[in-house]
Amino acid sequence: MKKARRRTPERIVETALRLFNEFGEPNVTTTVIADEMNISPGNLYYHFHNKDEIVSTLFADYEREVDALLTLRDTQPREAEDIWFFLHLLFEIIWKYRFIYRDINDLLTRSRLIETHFQRILAHKQQTALALCNGLAASGALEATPDELAALAVNITLVTSFWLSFEHARQPRKPPDIGRGVYQVMSLAAPWLRGPARQLLQKLSHEYL
Amino acid sequence: MKKARRRTPERIVETALRLFNEFGEPNVTTTVIADEMNISPGNLYYHFHNKDEIVSTLFADYEREVDALLTLRDTQPREAEDIWFFLHLLFEIIWKYRFIYRDINDLLTRSRLIETHFQRILAHKQQTALALCNGLAASGALEATPDELAALAVNITLVTSFWLSFEHARQPRKPPDIGRGVYQVMSLAAPWLRGPARQLLQKLSHEYL
Repeated sequence: MKKARRRTPERIVETALRLFNEFGEPNVTTTVIADEMNISPGNLYYHFHNKDEIVSTLFADYEREVDALLTLRDTQPREAEDIWFFLHLLFEIIWKYRFIYRDINDLLTRSRLIETHFQRILAHKQQTALALCNGLAASGALEATPDELAALAVNITLVTSFWLSFEHARQPRKPPDIGRGVYQVMSLAAPWLRGPARQLLQKLSHEYL
Repeated sequence: MKKARRRTPERIVETALRLFNEFGEPNVTTTVIADEMNISPGNLYYHFHNKDEIVSTLFADYEREVDALLTLRDTQPREAEDIWFFLHLLFEIIWKYRFIYRDINDLLTRSRLIETHFQRILAHKQQTALALCNGLAASGALEATPDELAALAVNITLVTSFWLSFEHARQPRKPPDIGRGVYQVMSLAAPWLRGPARQLLQKLSHEYL
């Protein structure tokens, strides 16, 4: 009994994430979440005073996961194949927390905290994209001027952030094929790649298509 | 008096567009629109039975404007400079109706009509992007394989559709510099351009930056 009660906050957050993703955060109330879990609204309020506290918890979870991936540490990918895998992981995190991207304007308007943290995440993505491209350029696998690299990093950030929204608008009732998103991002870098990196990308793309 | 009454529907639509763009469509009720215009809610309901009718009217206006631009007719642009201008016009239409893109997921969920029409507009954008790139390829100004052209057209559609949302997330309290959006779209095509087209683009970009 005590163990079950201890797990309630986690179950609330998990249930909220599932419902937010399915129906959109603005359409899910705390009452709906409590009802879905077969607990009383009072029990839910004991753990979270309002829906915004649940949203903030989920946003912090998302931020931690995406930051951990972007930081790369000592496993910095340098080959086209590693980047393909890295992008897959990034899209999987965005897919897991897709309600954030779908309702981003509403969330930005409502929460100054989410506004500043989302900006920080976009800046971190762009910085990582630039670092990856610079790494490829340093090894001779990529050839572009600094202006071209900067514009490429912005487009990589934009496409990784909004491809799922784009795909959702095109096919709202179909789960997305994340590989297609990765392919679109790789297509941004493809024309700048040289030598074996380009051939490897063409091979991967060919296998994919 | 009669003339003023005849113009009321137009004024309702104009006021709604301004308020939707400023505060987000979900946050603006018909009461707020009537109040802003100093008319009674009854007067508004005489012209539009509910908010969705106003939204549908605005969406139809948007669709007409964007289709007219995409159709291109006999003024099909073939030079980098024409495409730059064409993209400016496209971003200006999206900016004019920006509430549609900001709340697109909510609108798609609520209206099957908007869902199908928005899909049609995205398909039309992609088809126009592909036609423009094929035009450039035919004149030797662009060199890419059919797969590369297809991926490029998807990315052009995605970046033109979501650049404003991206920019809004980065700087919510600043009106966007549409030229930067055009620059990001042109950057997608840049590496595929050859000869004078590429030089012209570099010149335009240099002037812009």
